[in-house]
Amino acid sequence: MKAARFYDRGDIRIDEIPVPEVTAGTVGIDVAWCGICGSDLHEYLDGPIFVPPAGHPHPISGEDAPITLGHEMSGVVYAVGEGVTDIEIGQKVVVEPYIIDPQYSTEPGTNYHLTPNMNFIGLGGRGGGLGEKITVERRWVHPIADNVPLDEAALIEPLSVGYHAYVRSGAQEGDVALIGGAGPIGLLTAAVLKAKGVTVVISELSELRRQKAIEAGVADHALDPSQVNVVDEVRALTDGRGADVAFECTSVNVVLDTLVDAIKPGGTIVVVSIWGKRASVDLQKLVVKEIDLRGTIGYMGNHPATIDLVESGKIDLKPFITGKIGLDGLIDRGFDTLINRNETAVKILVSPSGAGL
Amino acid sequence: MKAARFYDRGDIRIDEIPVPEVTAGTVGIDVAWCGICGSDLHEYLDGPIFVPPAGHPHPISGEDAPITLGHEMSGVVYAVGEGVTDIEIGQKVVVEPYIIDPQYSTEPGTNYHLTPNMNFIGLGGRGGGLGEKITVERRWVHPIADNVPLDEAALIEPLSVGYHAYVRSGAQEGDVALIGGAGPIGLLTAAVLKAKGVTVVISELSELRRQKAIEAGVADHALDPSQVNVVDEVRALTDGRGADVAFECTSVNVVLDTLVDAIKPGGTIVVVSIWGKRASVDLQKLVVKEIDLRGTIGYMGNHPATIDLVESGKIDLKPFITGKIGLDGLIDRGFDTLINRNETAVKILVSPSGAGL
Repeated sequence: MKAARFYDRGDIRIDEIPVPEVTAGTVGIDVAWCGICGSDLHEYLDGPIFVPPAGHPHPISGEDAPITLGHEMSGVVYAVGEGVTDIEIGQKVVVEPYIIDPQYSTEPGTNYHLTPNMNFIGLGGRGGGLGEKITVERRWVHPIADNVPLDEAALIEPLSVGYHAYVRSGAQEGDVALIGGAGPIGLLTAAVLKAKGVTVVISELSELRRQKAIEAGVADHALDPSQVNVVDEVRALTDGRGADVAFECTSVNVVLDTLVDAIKPGGTIVVVSIWGKRASVDLQKLVVKEIDLRGTIGYMGNHPATIDLVESGKIDLKPFITGKIGLDGLIDRGFDTLINRNETAVKILVSPSGAGL
Repeated sequence: MKAARFYDRGDIRIDEIPVPEVTAGTVGIDVAWCGICGSDLHEYLDGPIFVPPAGHPHPISGEDAPITLGHEMSGVVYAVGEGVTDIEIGQKVVVEPYIIDPQYSTEPGTNYHLTPNMNFIGLGGRGGGLGEKITVERRWVHPIADNVPLDEAALIEPLSVGYHAYVRSGAQEGDVALIGGAGPIGLLTAAVLKAKGVTVVISELSELRRQKAIEAGVADHALDPSQVNVVDEVRALTDGRGADVAFECTSVNVVLDTLVDAIKPGGTIVVVSIWGKRASVDLQKLVVKEIDLRGTIGYMGNHPATIDLVESGKIDLKPFITGKIGLDGLIDRGFDTLINRNETAVKILVSPSGAGL
């Protein structure tokens, strides 16, 4: 079968590799669609980061580069391993792509996503969604209803990141949220917040992204921080109080500063983006406003609730699919578009077998 | 009566002023002891900060410099105003020294301490504990039991700061807490944590302060960060997990970095100290460890629980009293000692009338 494999920085190849065996306790999945994630781009441009370099196998997966990429996948079960009795061939599924040390519990509520050496399927080994087929432990396979199209289902993984960020924020129905940045994760976090009855204000420099946020129905207000004072606008929307919760989705320091100023006293700011550098934080404001500045990473027990929002129609993921390609277009039409023209793209999906195209 | 009044930076005078009237709804208190707080020193060295400068009256109190200082006070009720029926002359009391805009509720749970223009009695007006007598609204007067000595009672105000920081941390019995800095607030936060069944590790450069933490019984371990690797020591004490909660009580960036490294994934760091400058924060660690970095300021509904810890003997405040002076020694023996020889002092108490000396 064909698979996109990461060898080293700037070196991703479409290889012919064996179909992975479906062993006891695992599920064989025919991958329908796999999204390209910002972390895939980071591996390509600045990596290896999550990928274990050649000669340095990952302590849990035991694998090293070349590694099959892709962790935002949907597909259909084509085989089940011995002992798997609660899922059938033909079932539509998505994958929660964790690699967790087996000495730790993976029950929801145990913070399994924060355990030592945690990594992701499609970055740290165990195959990837950018291959035609994948074999995944039953624990990490989540069935989805037939009414969810498989292309939209490929966005459930990044939507779960937004769901977890929402949980971390403690946002309540009726709250006002300020989101800094309308990239894919900002938009998907907004989608969860809207579905939960939160008023969403997005601050975003790109006009195309602001338009997308409004057209997709995930933002009530999309502000251009080069034209308006975001802090004043948020205060005007909240009787002078400030935002109840805020989400940092840019890794840009001035955006973080704006959130610190726009959050209400006692409010919570969730840092969702990956920061490649240290940040300068006005701790005096953090102290006198009693702000909670919280990190969030991945998801932990959030897939069922996220899937429910999609199955019930409370979140429509279709507006966020801005491209569909095959493995042969992965670099030229996929990565290059996201790197060089990322204003125009939200999520580009790959059909590894080409069957969906 | 005599009172210490702040005129401007470096200009505090002992003045003769009228005894304040005991009006309806207020309580007249004969001040027994008043502690000198770090914020009093800040006003003296770098102020006015909280003090409204001459010509710029505070929007709630309506007062400007000169302002009577002192907000860590204990005393005895000598008169009650009309309508005050639940407190009697002769009652020992402490003061929760808030100045809050009357348009906001001051019920516990309402975050009244984060309301606009909040200030403190003894900094923003309404008299101060560095005067012989003070008149305080009934809401802010807390009775204490007869078994609590009035000198120790003067420490209930800063102890409430530690109690509120403990509440903000979410620490539970059996947790391990790391405190950066064993100044007065670090020590008093440690005292609350110990009383709540938390194992306390303090990191502190000063040998005298480490000794004080151990001798006062508020720290289980006092580490010298110039001699040991604090992160390794904390890991060794927690089966490799890291501290459950941490408290930043120094406003020193390297200490904050140590707490970020020493905290467990999913743990909470409370910033207790006042930061005069921006901090550099490794947000990547905040994200991948899902750290909560929380500000804390003052107290909010914490006085009754704090007083209970002292009345029940769970916290002994005597070890933290390192000096007793009269108003005439305020600058020479009080402020100068705390500014120039602050290793040797924890809390210096002032008897405004001299009756306690």
